[in-house]
Amino acid sequence: MLTMQEALIRLTEYWAGQGCVIVQPTNTEVGAGTLNPATALRVLGPEPWRVAYVEPSVRPDDSRYGDNPNRLQTHTQFQVILKPEPGDAQERYLGSLAALGVDLEAHDVRFVEDNWASPALGAWGLGWEVWLDGLEITQFTYFQQSGGLALDPVSVEITYGMERIIMALQGVSHFKEIAYAPGISYGEAFGQAEYEMSRYYLDDADIETGRELFEAYEAEARRLIAARLPVPAHSYVLKCSHAFNVLDARGAVGTTERARAFARMRGLARDVAQLWAERRDELGHPLGVAVTGAAAEAPPAASYPTIDAPAPLAFEIGVEELPPAEVARAAGYVRDALAEGLAATRLRHGEIDVVASPRRMVALVEDIAPREDDSEEVVRGPRLSAAYDAEGRPTKAAQGFARSRGVDVADLRPITWRGGEYAGYVEQVPGRPASEVLAALLPGVVTGLRAEKNMRWNAPGLSYSRPIRWILALLGDEVVPFSVGGMTAGRFTTVHRTAAEPRVEVASAGRHLDTLRAHGIEPDAARRRERIVATAAELARGVGGGIDAEAEGGVIDEVTDLVEEPVAILGSFDSGYLELPGDILTTVMKKHQRYLPVRDRDGRLLPHFVTMANGACDVAAVRAGNEAVLRARYEDASFFYRADLRVAPDELKRGLDKLTFEERLGSMTDRAERISAIALELAEWVELSADETEVLARAAALAKFDLGSQMVIELSSLAGVMAREYALKAGEPEAVANALHEMELPRSFGDRLPDSAPGALLAVADRLDLLAGLFGIGSVPSGSSDPFGLRRAALGLTAILRARPRLSAITVAEGLAVAARQQPVEVGPAALEESARFVTRRFEQALLDAGHPVGVVRAVLPHAGSPAYAEQAAADLEKLLGDERFDRLTTALQRVLRIVPAETAAAYDPALFDDDAERRLHDALTRVRGELGDAAVGLPAFTGAALALAGPIDDYFDEVLVMADDPAVRANRLGLLAAIRDLVAGVLDWREVS
Amino acid sequence: MLTMQEALIRLTEYWAGQGCVIVQPTNTEVGAGTLNPATALRVLGPEPWRVAYVEPSVRPDDSRYGDNPNRLQTHTQFQVILKPEPGDAQERYLGSLAALGVDLEAHDVRFVEDNWASPALGAWGLGWEVWLDGLEITQFTYFQQSGGLALDPVSVEITYGMERIIMALQGVSHFKEIAYAPGISYGEAFGQAEYEMSRYYLDDADIETGRELFEAYEAEARRLIAARLPVPAHSYVLKCSHAFNVLDARGAVGTTERARAFARMRGLARDVAQLWAERRDELGHPLGVAVTGAAAEAPPAASYPTIDAPAPLAFEIGVEELPPAEVARAAGYVRDALAEGLAATRLRHGEIDVVASPRRMVALVEDIAPREDDSEEVVRGPRLSAAYDAEGRPTKAAQGFARSRGVDVADLRPITWRGGEYAGYVEQVPGRPASEVLAALLPGVVTGLRAEKNMRWNAPGLSYSRPIRWILALLGDEVVPFSVGGMTAGRFTTVHRTAAEPRVEVASAGRHLDTLRAHGIEPDAARRRERIVATAAELARGVGGGIDAEAEGGVIDEVTDLVEEPVAILGSFDSGYLELPGDILTTVMKKHQRYLPVRDRDGRLLPHFVTMANGACDVAAVRAGNEAVLRARYEDASFFYRADLRVAPDELKRGLDKLTFEERLGSMTDRAERISAIALELAEWVELSADETEVLARAAALAKFDLGSQMVIELSSLAGVMAREYALKAGEPEAVANALHEMELPRSFGDRLPDSAPGALLAVADRLDLLAGLFGIGSVPSGSSDPFGLRRAALGLTAILRARPRLSAITVAEGLAVAARQQPVEVGPAALEESARFVTRRFEQALLDAGHPVGVVRAVLPHAGSPAYAEQAAADLEKLLGDERFDRLTTALQRVLRIVPAETAAAYDPALFDDDAERRLHDALTRVRGELGDAAVGLPAFTGAALALAGPIDDYFDEVLVMADDPAVRANRLGLLAAIRDLVAGVLDWREVS
Repeated sequence: MLTMQEALIRLTEYWAGQGCVIVQPTNTEVGAGTLNPATALRVLGPEPWRVAYVEPSVRPDDSRYGDNPNRLQTHTQFQVILKPEPGDAQERYLGSLAALGVDLEAHDVRFVEDNWASPALGAWGLGWEVWLDGLEITQFTYFQQSGGLALDPVSVEITYGMERIIMALQGVSHFKEIAYAPGISYGEAFGQAEYEMSRYYLDDADIETGRELFEAYEAEARRLIAARLPVPAHSYVLKCSHAFNVLDARGAVGTTERARAFARMRGLARDVAQLWAERRDELGHPLGVAVTGAAAEAPPAASYPTIDAPAPLAFEIGVEELPPAEVARAAGYVRDALAEGLAATRLRHGEIDVVASPRRMVALVEDIAPREDDSEEVVRGPRLSAAYDAEGRPTKAAQGFARSRGVDVADLRPITWRGGEYAGYVEQVPGRPASEVLAALLPGVVTGLRAEKNMRWNAPGLSYSRPIRWILALLGDEVVPFSVGGMTAGRFTTVHRTAAEPRVEVASAGRHLDTLRAHGIEPDAARRRERIVATAAELARGVGGGIDAEAEGGVIDEVTDLVEEPVAILGSFDSGYLELPGDILTTVMKKHQRYLPVRDRDGRLLPHFVTMANGACDVAAVRAGNEAVLRARYEDASFFYRADLRVAPDELKRGLDKLTFEERLGSMTDRAERISAIALELAEWVELSADETEVLARAAALAKFDLGSQMVIELSSLAGVMAREYALKAGEPEAVANALHEMELPRSFGDRLPDSAPGALLAVADRLDLLAGLFGIGSVPSGSSDPFGLRRAALGLTAILRARPRLSAITVAEGLAVAARQQPVEVGPAALEESARFVTRRFEQALLDAGHPVGVVRAVLPHAGSPAYAEQAAADLEKLLGDERFDRLTTALQRVLRIVPAETAAAYDPALFDDDAERRLHDALTRVRGELGDAAVGLPAFTGAALALAGPIDDYFDEVLVMADDPAVRANRLGLLAAIRDLVAGVLDWREVS
Repeated sequence: MLTMQEALIRLTEYWAGQGCVIVQPTNTEVGAGTLNPATALRVLGPEPWRVAYVEPSVRPDDSRYGDNPNRLQTHTQFQVILKPEPGDAQERYLGSLAALGVDLEAHDVRFVEDNWASPALGAWGLGWEVWLDGLEITQFTYFQQSGGLALDPVSVEITYGMERIIMALQGVSHFKEIAYAPGISYGEAFGQAEYEMSRYYLDDADIETGRELFEAYEAEARRLIAARLPVPAHSYVLKCSHAFNVLDARGAVGTTERARAFARMRGLARDVAQLWAERRDELGHPLGVAVTGAAAEAPPAASYPTIDAPAPLAFEIGVEELPPAEVARAAGYVRDALAEGLAATRLRHGEIDVVASPRRMVALVEDIAPREDDSEEVVRGPRLSAAYDAEGRPTKAAQGFARSRGVDVADLRPITWRGGEYAGYVEQVPGRPASEVLAALLPGVVTGLRAEKNMRWNAPGLSYSRPIRWILALLGDEVVPFSVGGMTAGRFTTVHRTAAEPRVEVASAGRHLDTLRAHGIEPDAARRRERIVATAAELARGVGGGIDAEAEGGVIDEVTDLVEEPVAILGSFDSGYLELPGDILTTVMKKHQRYLPVRDRDGRLLPHFVTMANGACDVAAVRAGNEAVLRARYEDASFFYRADLRVAPDELKRGLDKLTFEERLGSMTDRAERISAIALELAEWVELSADETEVLARAAALAKFDLGSQMVIELSSLAGVMAREYALKAGEPEAVANALHEMELPRSFGDRLPDSAPGALLAVADRLDLLAGLFGIGSVPSGSSDPFGLRRAALGLTAILRARPRLSAITVAEGLAVAARQQPVEVGPAALEESARFVTRRFEQALLDAGHPVGVVRAVLPHAGSPAYAEQAAADLEKLLGDERFDRLTTALQRVLRIVPAETAAAYDPALFDDDAERRLHDALTRVRGELGDAAVGLPAFTGAALALAGPIDDYFDEVLVMADDPAVRANRLGLLAAIRDLVAGVLDWREVS
């Protein structure tokens, strides 16, 4: 059996063999190997660097007293940096797994999108989690930025989670059981430290001391930056960060404090990075400057192969594993780019078909003509009048032009261009060979690839989601000769990395797809999806169940673009776990593991799942691995579930005391109490039944109690879900449990909304409290920073109010005012107004996103405070638009609104009328008023009545000079218009209607 | 070439192969691998543990900006713990050197005594530095105590200094040149960090912050101890320690603060250790309990071999390398123990000869008789009267006695014992065979071995300087059968570890020495010494020089007992270094390297040295290694020397500002100024010439300036020496330079004393300042703690005053009073008195050590304040003692002193005399008074006059009843005696004379 220490030695030797310097762990506590100066500083600047080291990584937050089988306050990372990225880091990485004894052909190793960012470091990168039979064992990142500096060259960062790897390799289910060294287990070696350090971080660290240390370390870091000493400064940034993490684990950091501390640490990290880069520059880059990318782009081909008859084009762009969401996007882009590119040439071609997998975009273009069509080009010389003398003989100008163009002056002929007459000629342009056309076109398709998040790697001119590693371009059986980003197109594709020979020659374009399929690659997503659905269903049937392909559409789509050769494997778990709430089970399966749940005919979960391996493997081994991963996760969940159930909801709620919500806004208990008070006050505006009132009272009393549960601390996405679950188990009425669940809805855009009135009230109160409180202390989202999720809160608030008419009496402004009165800080009118405006803007955006035209949205914005009303108004308005009579009314009203100054009062004296049009308008206004009465009516009703105003208004403007010379007359006429203005003012912002 | 990273990997693998767990370095800054909890905590308690790890060790004090070739603020230790010590740790260690590619047959590997103690950890152990060709590469320790707890079982701790080893193996002369990894040097990998961390530790660390951190860490450690969490508590002890080290490197720690901080850290370490041990106990010792030592002692031999004729005994006790000072002591002990032991038997034997080397004591006893002589034993029964009845027949008592002893009652005979008559008999006791006698005797010789410092190891019942590893005991060609400390005596000895077969069988006792010598071992120190002197001299002659065997006696003695087979190797150094002061060169050669300096006929140093390798080796390689070590040391010294010479003495002196002497007593500048002022004030009591006054003034102004020099910071034993040197180079007068040197004398007991008056005055002032200041703030030596060296100061002070009569006007008390007035703190009368008493006690001890009888010393103690006078008085008194007349005087005076109450005034009225004896005494007193006059006279003169009092006093007591009934008469008589008391009071404490 490979012990953990032997594994560390093997990795050390393997990477030393790959040219890595071996250094020691950081000698101050760090949360990750990335923070070691051998990474954090060395990835900066142009110097080459390869390093590998062990890094015991301290995460106070992960303290579990050594009880949790998978979670440790100090876990062991093995960290590798390859700078510049060598182009084959994934293959080297797989080599390291082989060095650990992993049989790569038997196991399922996958690169699953996982991007990395450390706000505290001002650092980010794109890359993957590496999964070994479903277990995340490594983080693999193309490091793009550190300390706020763009990295050039880009480094590859590989971080192994050693305990997990070893647990998998040794087949043990608790980290303490790992054979650490011959005859000594991990628990024996480190168990006591794990327990005691957990005690320290969770229970015993002195908070006041922690705060002092943070300040002292920060001050020291600043001093050292000022002294231009990046190395010691960095070590104090690390100490800062650890001090912060300890405070955080002790529950002593509120959200605002967190944001502030992060900003401070990020600032320090940025200064240190900048300083280090400068210092290395001053030192003349002692390790030299990395040679990156290819040399200059290869020159254009000397000659282009030709084909005799129309032939297909196979064009493949090979990439490292794309994020699933990028696969379809990439195919679409390539299709469009090819179509547009070809359309701009005179090359005839047949159908363009593009398919894609995580590792390739494959374009097939049928029937590419051997050459472009020939064409003619008109070449214009001097004006005709200057080209020939009076005798019609060519002038010197004409002769010079002809000579310069290599044509006979006698061949010049008159050309008409923009109404002028010129001497010129028509040149016959022969079409280029197809390969030349494609060689000019295809590089642009590659360089034009963009994803939602793009990265750089060691390829000049390219920027994409993941590195592009090869280009295949075959026209018939000829290679289209071009280079791009340091790669030369060829006839080779790459199949599974575990293949005996991953690089495979393709005979001709027409053989391309078959070649791929012969090597187990299905490049067509639709076919992969079909296979997934079919094979999963078959396996599920084998255990008397099925896959709900519709309900699991999301995860099926994701898996489709995670693998190139889906191999369905049925796994099982102990049916005892079925006692856990289904949401927990499926959250873990789908969100964490990308497994398909297996259900019986009634939709009940069965103790099985289907996972998709990527290509042929030892099914038993992969199944066992995945089952072990799921078991560990369920064991965790089960542990939390049982622990939580031992505590009554009221008791859990008392635990919220320990969770700081925000320094100035108090604990989560304070927040829950505010939500409760707000909801109860808002309830007075809503007609609740006696039952509902009772439900609301109880739910309000328990509001947010599940935040104190271990399950929600672990799986925060289950907030609300667990509240419902635990409330029911504790004997609360179902309605109360539902309200507690609903108060967390919607969790994201498009999510379910609360159904019950108590749930909706609590949900609204939750969001109002957040908005009023945070705006009250001036903590307003800016740029991409929205730590409290105020944008989501605003959207959620309006979504509920739009969808739940029973709450229509509640306006945003009034609701915020109610919430403001509950805050422990003074929320002034300016803050209140700002918060309301913030909600309005979100609402405006939501309406636009829902497809309403901008003229409609702007027109109904005055009602943003009553989203249900506003939404209805928008719908109504949209129906009315285009109606001739309505448009006439609108135009008429807009004339009115343009001319009446805002300050003009709606006061006029009919006695002063001296024109009939005035009288008619007055009469019409009076009638319409009478018709509308005092009650608010909807837009259609209002319009129905107000249409009668259109004609009189038009007449008024046609016949009456509003701006009369006599001031009294003018005032009276404006007063009449102001009365119309006031009548229509509350309905829409008519000026915006368009 | 073996790179450093490869070396670390090889050591890791080697020790993993020896059953060590491999762990990671500490994740907080530590000064040594010992502090890693894998050592500091795991060596405690009974659990077995083997561990190895790399430990980057941070010593802020060693910061040199990366300039010094050998000194780094972070150096790399490789640390190994073997618990329990396995009995062959040295051999395993040598195996690790072989794993690094060291050819053990070619190189000179030596184990040179070096004991280790960490006051901050409450830890100590005995062991060695391991030298590779003169270079210290490893610390090897039998760890005896940690955190104040005795360790049981004992661990072996092996700490490799990796940079040094690698520099030697790679043959580079600066750490930056080490090939750290293929293609990357140490300087490239770590140079910038070395520079910047040096800047931080020496220049930029904020002192106030450092103090706050120390306090915060200590408080956290205390809290965690209270919470019974030894692991996090330990980490805070480490942080404390590092914070302290940073402050220290910044020059912010005075001696008192240091002592206080150490006490605090030691206390914490002790609590943590105690707590850890308790916790492991509570946990039931999860790693089990180490099986130590042998099983129970082997039972006595079943049979003893016999010899036919007298034969020699060879008895060898094999040990790991003894400290040189123990070798002769061990030989002496074994000789005495054998002689005494044999004397207590009836075994005849010839001469006993014992020789010793660092690895063995070898005893040869000639002509051991085959058996003990037979003897008779008288066995006593009942009293004769009870043994026989009136008829002379044996009583029951006699019969019972005879039966119980298995003799015939008829054989009983009368025995006289203590004047009584008994029935009894004489038993014939046959002598035991020699081997049985020896088997009973020799174990006690082994268990009785004791050294100045003793340790435990894995051997029950033994405690000695270093582990005993084998016992050879041959009587003729027979093994004497016994066991001791888990070892069984046999016929095997152990020769050089590098021998092909280190374990060698010895045919017979008579062949023992020859066998050893045949394997290159010279067990006889005298012969080794001869060989050293002869071979060194011969090599020195080869370069035109010689060895001053007398001057170098100390180092020759030391080397004699450092090796078993001295192989002289001549080395050379660059003659450029001869420009350095000779004291520097020889200090380094002798004290640090145990080399013999080579001098020309005029005693001038030549650029050569002789070192003694231990046994055959590749002379060229060993020479080269030793030369490289010396070069590095001289390069260092040279660097400091040149740097210091660039700075004028006055400027160096200003640097003392940065050195804290003691928190309350100020900086070293303050102290130097006080010394200067005290010396100038004392000078007024001494008649100085004008020249001397001038010299004193200048020397006082420069006092202690060399403490600011880099050389003295590095080699503190050169304080004063460098002052002289630098002063001369700066053009100061020779007398000034000498005074600056002399003020540091004596540096130790028996050292040279200052000759010049200015030097002596400064030296006295120095010590007075120390005493007055420290007693003033209550910092008094206690137990073994004397951080400021007050004991040495007191001895030095009295030594100078004793030896320099020109200073006789200065008394200790007055000098202390002068010094007290210079202190920045109030030094009260009680403190002054205590300090004077402290000096007196040291002086008393010094006089006793000098051989003066206690009665003499006590008698002269009233003059301790004037040591010269007191010493003279002691010498005088010693001569007088035994003189009949003086003794009579003493007796007479003691009678007087016994009878006169202390409060009695010396007042009497001759008119009241009514006895002639009274009058005679009065007359005698008057005469003696007249003779002595008012001037103080020495003891001989005083005695000469006072002898005349003896007779009258005796008569007085014979003839007069002092305690007369009449109070007036009694008072008058006592008054006369009081007058005598007062006359003699200042001379001696007569009551003590004996």
